[in-house]
Amino acid sequence: MTEHSLWRFSRALHRAINDRQLEDIAGMLDDEVEWAIYGPIDVFPFFGSRSGKAAVLEVIRQIADNVRVHRFDREQIMLGADSAASMIRYSLTALDANKPISLRVAHFARFRDGQLTSLRVVVDTFDLVEQTVGYPIHMAPMAIAR
Amino acid sequence: MTEHSLWRFSRALHRAINDRQLEDIAGMLDDEVEWAIYGPIDVFPFFGSRSGKAAVLEVIRQIADNVRVHRFDREQIMLGADSAASMIRYSLTALDANKPISLRVAHFARFRDGQLTSLRVVVDTFDLVEQTVGYPIHMAPMAIAR
Repeated sequence: MTEHSLWRFSRALHRAINDRQLEDIAGMLDDEVEWAIYGPIDVFPFFGSRSGKAAVLEVIRQIADNVRVHRFDREQIMLGADSAASMIRYSLTALDANKPISLRVAHFARFRDGQLTSLRVVVDTFDLVEQTVGYPIHMAPMAIAR
Repeated sequence: MTEHSLWRFSRALHRAINDRQLEDIAGMLDDEVEWAIYGPIDVFPFFGSRSGKAAVLEVIRQIADNVRVHRFDREQIMLGADSAASMIRYSLTALDANKPISLRVAHFARFRDGQLTSLRVVVDTFDLVEQTVGYPIHMAPMAIAR
């Protein structure tokens, strides 16, 4: 039984982010890969959409320039033949402020011939923004209409 | 071939939210259901964790008191025997301000004997918060360390 592409991809991504070794991940990106991390691109320039291997490698390098992964817990997982989805709780360090950040993301990945063709990531961004600025953003609660 | 529980659940949930008809969804909740929508519970009191059928029905009622679903596009989907994950783009109306809101969520659901035992939802919450307050929350971008 062949190892699922998700595991190779996960190892390659973390190696890229933590060790700045991009060779493994470069070998796993389809030339036409589609990539999106949904969130405020004005706050996190490495969020947003990227198309193609070169653009995705560049954004992974930007992520590596900004964070280190300390640990991650895969809380939910679904594996298909050429697809995977998981919900992951990350413990990171933001390098510019040397500050710990924890966040929860959900991703959907598709592979073809062992290479990533699509990655879509939803992030609990408000929590992330509050941790990044370092203080709570106070807002009135949404009214509970009764 | 039996219809996947996700489709029944999805119809029942939208019927509960838009028509305030809770019977269908009540019949699909396991007594010990675990439920979590990750996000700022001080802004959205119907976010957070709930345990058990009664608590989940109550939070669905709160959601129904606050929003209507206009449309949703299921952008990604994975189905397992008793599980499902999808990424969904919703167009909603916030009822208190009669304001349109669009947001992207990812959910992971588990079923047993056709009943929901677990639901975990990640929301692009920063985007949601900005739309709810009605103006952009300005913040300095995270530095791109080079």
